[in-house]
Amino acid sequence: MTGADRMGASTIEAGTVWLVGAGPGDPDLLTRKAEKLLSAATVVFYDALVSKAILALIPDHVRLVPVGKRSGRHSKDQGSINDLLVRAALAGESVVRLKGGDPSIFGRSVEEMTELAKHGVTVQICPGITAASAAAASANISLTLRGLARKLVLVTAHARAGEALDLDWEALADPKTTLAIYMGKAAAHEVSEQLIAAGLSGHTPVMVAENVSLPEERLVHTRLDLLGLTAQSIGDGPALLLIGEATKPLSDTAPRSLQHQTTMPRDFSAVQ
Amino acid sequence: MTGADRMGASTIEAGTVWLVGAGPGDPDLLTRKAEKLLSAATVVFYDALVSKAILALIPDHVRLVPVGKRSGRHSKDQGSINDLLVRAALAGESVVRLKGGDPSIFGRSVEEMTELAKHGVTVQICPGITAASAAAASANISLTLRGLARKLVLVTAHARAGEALDLDWEALADPKTTLAIYMGKAAAHEVSEQLIAAGLSGHTPVMVAENVSLPEERLVHTRLDLLGLTAQSIGDGPALLLIGEATKPLSDTAPRSLQHQTTMPRDFSAVQ
Repeated sequence: MTGADRMGASTIEAGTVWLVGAGPGDPDLLTRKAEKLLSAATVVFYDALVSKAILALIPDHVRLVPVGKRSGRHSKDQGSINDLLVRAALAGESVVRLKGGDPSIFGRSVEEMTELAKHGVTVQICPGITAASAAAASANISLTLRGLARKLVLVTAHARAGEALDLDWEALADPKTTLAIYMGKAAAHEVSEQLIAAGLSGHTPVMVAENVSLPEERLVHTRLDLLGLTAQSIGDGPALLLIGEATKPLSDTAPRSLQHQTTMPRDFSAVQ
Repeated sequence: MTGADRMGASTIEAGTVWLVGAGPGDPDLLTRKAEKLLSAATVVFYDALVSKAILALIPDHVRLVPVGKRSGRHSKDQGSINDLLVRAALAGESVVRLKGGDPSIFGRSVEEMTELAKHGVTVQICPGITAASAAAASANISLTLRGLARKLVLVTAHARAGEALDLDWEALADPKTTLAIYMGKAAAHEVSEQLIAAGLSGHTPVMVAENVSLPEERLVHTRLDLLGLTAQSIGDGPALLLIGEATKPLSDTAPRSLQHQTTMPRDFSAVQ
């Protein structure tokens, strides 16, 4: 139904692996290349963060193998995934390792590449739309603004169980930056407290983006000092925090189709 | 030949505008959504950075209008583009504004959105693969590495003619960061000097990525203290600088098909 038949030419050499970015979840936000590779694979190992709508695009003859947990960052799990990839490649399969978002941004791709390289397996990467780009598109905002937000900083708030976040809050608390915090929901209260303690205004605009690009997407505009409360009000889906002046909504251009909430006045005017 | 016919369902309401990310240049790195929108448009206004291979995907009945220069960031140019978009939308066209990369990352999308909103025109955004993601994929590296590169920072080195770069070098000189400098070639010498003066080691790995994802792509691995020299050796295409430990090549997994140069020993081992 997709890819190779229609567009031709895309193959995966037997015994090699492609790390493919699935993007944020909307199958239309897959790249054309990812779509072709998914049709050319004999087996696809996919993360829990990959949406059902994307899996539905993969032809029936391709074997689908779920790997990883939603917050499955334990080394044992990663070791098992590495083993599965190595074994499939050495068995001569055409392997796709399908990861949510972009493999090169908090995707732990190097652990898999290093292990595959040890076994002489060729690996290549197909990039994906990262959540920050998709959230900005959904919300009709830009991540950068001339003069106001000249830098975009991406970090992850995921910590091992029981460990505190180890982020340099002083460096992150820059009013001329847009800060994108991946996996940020659980840490929202700490993020708010630490950034304010480090000097960022409590009135700094924030957007919480849950289930970006999926039908159940929620975009909630709030302020840094209200972020802890706001995060409690959203669901259990993966959430991204976008912090900084650039995240303030341009109310006049907000897409009408979205469930777009705000807990701050929409007094936004020309910003550049 | 593309999009709407094959995949159905995608339309652009007359009198509205989509800002669409074209990604880095390879037409296979367009999203499925971008492809559909390009087929649904009646007119496409495109940047100089959009590749010919992408324009070739657009059906013949869609009017193509080039706008902007390669470094066309003068306010007069932007004003003219805004006018063209507003006029086309008010005339009832289905408008795509096609931008290189991702519209939300150094894409000046808010200037166009603000102007369109003033005239009551609905705007939506389709995200694109940004150059940093595509460069990492081409080079088989990750932009983040647990422990070594926990933060990804994107800035642009584009300055108005005659103006010095106004970047906070102290904040950027963080050895645990991957720094992506867009439009970085002309400023390579200054970037090298300033980051070293701010405390970053001259031995910090750097990758210069020119014409990312295009047939004429060049990826050159170097070091921060050699960056000025390295940048002189590459061509005139748009170039991205990636700076930090994460940019060191995993030599065993480097795709065989790429023109991959290095000016440093490939002694990379397990990094995470």
